[in-house]
Amino acid sequence: MALKAQVLYDFTAEPGNNELTVKEGETVTITNQNIGGGWIEAQNSRGEVGLVPEDYIEFSKALPSFPGAGTSGPALSVGNVASPDLSFFDAYAPTSAPAQNQASNGNDPWSVWNTDPSGGSNNNWASNPEGTQTGKNAPDPWGSHGHPQAYQGPDIYPYPYLIDYTGAEDDEWDDDWDDMKSTGGYVESESGDSGAMQRGGAHATSMKISLNKFPGFSKSGPELYLLCKQFAKGKDKLPIYTGEVGPVWSYPESQLDCIVADPKKGSKMYGLKSYIEYQITPSNTNRPVNHRYKHFDWLYERLLDKFGSAIPIPSLPDKQVTGRFEEEFIKMRMERLQGWMTRMCRHPVVSSSEVFQLFLTYKDEKDWKMGKRKAEKDETVGVMIFSTIEPEAPDLDLIEVEQKCDQFSRFTKAMDDGVKEILTVGHEHWKRCTGPLPKEYQRIGKAFQNLSTVFTSSGYQGESTLTDALTAAGKTYEDIAQMVAEQPKKDLHFLMETNNEYKGLLGCFPDTIGVHKAAIDKVKEADKLVATSKIAPQDKVTMGKRASTMSYALQAEMNHFHSNRIYDYNRVMQLYLEEQVKFYETIAAKLRQAHSQFTTM
Amino acid sequence: MALKAQVLYDFTAEPGNNELTVKEGETVTITNQNIGGGWIEAQNSRGEVGLVPEDYIEFSKALPSFPGAGTSGPALSVGNVASPDLSFFDAYAPTSAPAQNQASNGNDPWSVWNTDPSGGSNNNWASNPEGTQTGKNAPDPWGSHGHPQAYQGPDIYPYPYLIDYTGAEDDEWDDDWDDMKSTGGYVESESGDSGAMQRGGAHATSMKISLNKFPGFSKSGPELYLLCKQFAKGKDKLPIYTGEVGPVWSYPESQLDCIVADPKKGSKMYGLKSYIEYQITPSNTNRPVNHRYKHFDWLYERLLDKFGSAIPIPSLPDKQVTGRFEEEFIKMRMERLQGWMTRMCRHPVVSSSEVFQLFLTYKDEKDWKMGKRKAEKDETVGVMIFSTIEPEAPDLDLIEVEQKCDQFSRFTKAMDDGVKEILTVGHEHWKRCTGPLPKEYQRIGKAFQNLSTVFTSSGYQGESTLTDALTAAGKTYEDIAQMVAEQPKKDLHFLMETNNEYKGLLGCFPDTIGVHKAAIDKVKEADKLVATSKIAPQDKVTMGKRASTMSYALQAEMNHFHSNRIYDYNRVMQLYLEEQVKFYETIAAKLRQAHSQFTTM
Repeated sequence: MALKAQVLYDFTAEPGNNELTVKEGETVTITNQNIGGGWIEAQNSRGEVGLVPEDYIEFSKALPSFPGAGTSGPALSVGNVASPDLSFFDAYAPTSAPAQNQASNGNDPWSVWNTDPSGGSNNNWASNPEGTQTGKNAPDPWGSHGHPQAYQGPDIYPYPYLIDYTGAEDDEWDDDWDDMKSTGGYVESESGDSGAMQRGGAHATSMKISLNKFPGFSKSGPELYLLCKQFAKGKDKLPIYTGEVGPVWSYPESQLDCIVADPKKGSKMYGLKSYIEYQITPSNTNRPVNHRYKHFDWLYERLLDKFGSAIPIPSLPDKQVTGRFEEEFIKMRMERLQGWMTRMCRHPVVSSSEVFQLFLTYKDEKDWKMGKRKAEKDETVGVMIFSTIEPEAPDLDLIEVEQKCDQFSRFTKAMDDGVKEILTVGHEHWKRCTGPLPKEYQRIGKAFQNLSTVFTSSGYQGESTLTDALTAAGKTYEDIAQMVAEQPKKDLHFLMETNNEYKGLLGCFPDTIGVHKAAIDKVKEADKLVATSKIAPQDKVTMGKRASTMSYALQAEMNHFHSNRIYDYNRVMQLYLEEQVKFYETIAAKLRQAHSQFTTM
Repeated sequence: MALKAQVLYDFTAEPGNNELTVKEGETVTITNQNIGGGWIEAQNSRGEVGLVPEDYIEFSKALPSFPGAGTSGPALSVGNVASPDLSFFDAYAPTSAPAQNQASNGNDPWSVWNTDPSGGSNNNWASNPEGTQTGKNAPDPWGSHGHPQAYQGPDIYPYPYLIDYTGAEDDEWDDDWDDMKSTGGYVESESGDSGAMQRGGAHATSMKISLNKFPGFSKSGPELYLLCKQFAKGKDKLPIYTGEVGPVWSYPESQLDCIVADPKKGSKMYGLKSYIEYQITPSNTNRPVNHRYKHFDWLYERLLDKFGSAIPIPSLPDKQVTGRFEEEFIKMRMERLQGWMTRMCRHPVVSSSEVFQLFLTYKDEKDWKMGKRKAEKDETVGVMIFSTIEPEAPDLDLIEVEQKCDQFSRFTKAMDDGVKEILTVGHEHWKRCTGPLPKEYQRIGKAFQNLSTVFTSSGYQGESTLTDALTAAGKTYEDIAQMVAEQPKKDLHFLMETNNEYKGLLGCFPDTIGVHKAAIDKVKEADKLVATSKIAPQDKVTMGKRASTMSYALQAEMNHFHSNRIYDYNRVMQLYLEEQVKFYETIAAKLRQAHSQFTTM
């Protein structure tokens, strides 16, 4: 039973969680393998005993949740079984290029197809008033932070919430994974790997990205859709209408909405591990359901698989955002989960999808589990989502398709820069408003009060009016100091959150647009393929039609993005300026009050 | 005619002033000794020719304006001729102790008699929220900057006005000194020395201080007054009445006031040297007179000689305060000269004095010169001023005299600390408001405008409302940036100036109070002196009476100080807060305007 094991990655225990801090390379003794939930109990050389994520430890028995790294071959074949032989294409190269390229190092994902003439896009990434900040605060969405589309907010936006790469999330390691593993498919390895990945940092991240996060890339290139002989029947179709602004999704009569609230702390494994459960109440049923973070995460993976090629699915708030206080952390994550759910509810395609409805309206545990199984078996994922899309308008020629694509690429790239600039400046401002500035007003206040105290000691009569006024003025500046320090939570916070959300959303466009770029490339190859009779002339026509369909989808999505963007920025700027006005008016009123106490007889 | 000379101190030429930059130790050739005004024309080894202050140069002929340093003996005897033999006192020791002590090194003048139990007064000097600033910004008034009471404002308060030790003042070096030298007396060496001193830095400063600046110390200790057999007749007397607040000077019906304005640049020596002339219009005659800075300086010296022992005479704004631009410098110095004149006008004793009236109301050049001669011959200077003071109230016993003195000493010391704290904090605030803060608002404004530009490129219709609003909001924050940067000139400036003025004024109290301390010590020696029949018993009674008179004078002066202080601080705080209110209200209004442009339909 004295089974020794090697530690693979550093892991820092979360206080009061029965965990054990271990260092990479350290040897530990396994004292209990049957904790479950991806944890094992181990003892270090100093005799300390505690829980360690099993993925962090390597011992003889190969855990199913820890496959050898770099097994792209086999992983690629997964789910690829049914797909036609498309090997005549200079296969995945172009398609998976972005993923490979971007994952391999911190390159600019936009650069792959960036047609923006304005110089090297890497410079563009760095375009930010204060050079100093850029490096740290405008990280490439492909940085090694786990999710390829990972919401980098906390990185550019430390304010109270920081990424903690060492602290693992409790509530994603419990035994539910086991029942999920039993469902087979690549979900299993994913759950484990994404965990290992987040903990271990960038270990084999590129693999994870290309294997698991983008079925659209990993299982196939767009050619799977472009040349698919026939689409599965009876799928619910996604019509695209022509509105004032151009192609638009079909929007429901009443917009779905939901409220994320009432986080409750639960515990399992005889209290060894704890988790948090949120109550979600959708506006359609108005009946609350409970979900843990890992359920949101599951939903995110499903939506990404199913819609990721056509619709940018923003990542969830980072698992490892942590507040200085647990309440703060819970409140913050709930706020961000609410933001994420609201955005998903607002999306006509996502919100009406079966899996999303399941998440919001499942009746009981059984209903939920069955729904999960079904969703995980869904075949219409990756590029095949386009097979369900039905534009009412006539086909577009390839030129137009390409122009649209480039235009959206340029815009999203430019907006990404703009948003990051606001985040950088906002972060600077946050630091100043919560740091030096209030300190200074406090010192001004103290200086007035100290002088008042001196005056009181003069022994001269008729002093009190001045000294009272001076003291009051001093206290006023102390009040102002406090107001200044608290203001950012009231206004800047929301400006930052909104821009963070958009930063995350914009980080998804490189993938979504990438699929189109790849499709366009395929269609361009068509002539050659016909000439060498690799495909029939009819196939070429089909490819053109389907590329047009993809373009309508992208345009509908862009129009959806624009209308939401206009609403969101109007809203947040109104809120920001409203609070700013209140802030300055309150200060003016306080000072006027202080002023009234001085008198020159 | 190829007279060689050695350069004694570094001198940096003022641009466009025909001056020659020379370094200490350098040898130059005198090309013209007859320039006058304390200047000679010299040629350096590189053949460059220009004007150099003659005091900077040492050549065979000993200039009357450059006596050997450290000749305290002979200098002491000057003006001492008529005084009785008081050698039986452990003579000047106690009296001149402060001066020596303080001048010798940067010691705390308060420390000499500081009865404040709250720890070493050197610590007190450093008592200032941000330790960092103290050292540089709260210099001891006895620092080596020429005037012992030198207004150190610019030192603690760099904002646009800095001390420039290299640039000499033009308008104090013209030939008027010559006619003054002809008047004999120690004025001659003073004019030259004080000049040399300011240029050469701290050379023999202590001597200058004890010899010239404090006749009260240098010519005699208070015993000169305490034991004077009989006072000069027919002097205009200075009555002290008993008011509500205690002993008070007699105040005139209508307070004298004057306006310093209309600075004009004149030039002399065939345009070689230029100077600035100010127009001063007193409220009593309402007839403007012109004066150059050196005339103010002359007045200051006269007032210091005559009243310095009883009344703190604040130094003039530092000669070498310089602005980044000449206009700014002239404006600033005029503003400070106005402040100084206003304070002098407000003082009942000073404003009614003959020399002050001469300065404000002389009819013509002849009138002025005659008045000058007379003033310089005035015998009632130093401690003898007390011989003209006539309190109406009964004599105070020594205990009471001592208590009052200690109380005032404690208060002025404490206020000095308080004022310096405000100056330090204010200076910090000034830097922030004119530096990082506006930059930040500018960046916020730019970020909004940049995002607006990106949005404009979306190609989505119905964009303009948002983009216009965003641009307007951006411009608003740019406006705010400018407002923030300009605000300190509108409010903080006056708060700083007032506190600087008080810092200068408070720097004079150690001397004024010191004279009293010395007098008290003398009276305490009286018994011993009677016992050893060095003095008659009657002399002891006289000494007590006169110490009482000195105490009344000090109390009257303190009450004058307090009433002015209460008025000044009420006034400046009103002004400061009024401007602050306007500032914040304007910002709020601008932001409300910006807010109104956003809309969530």
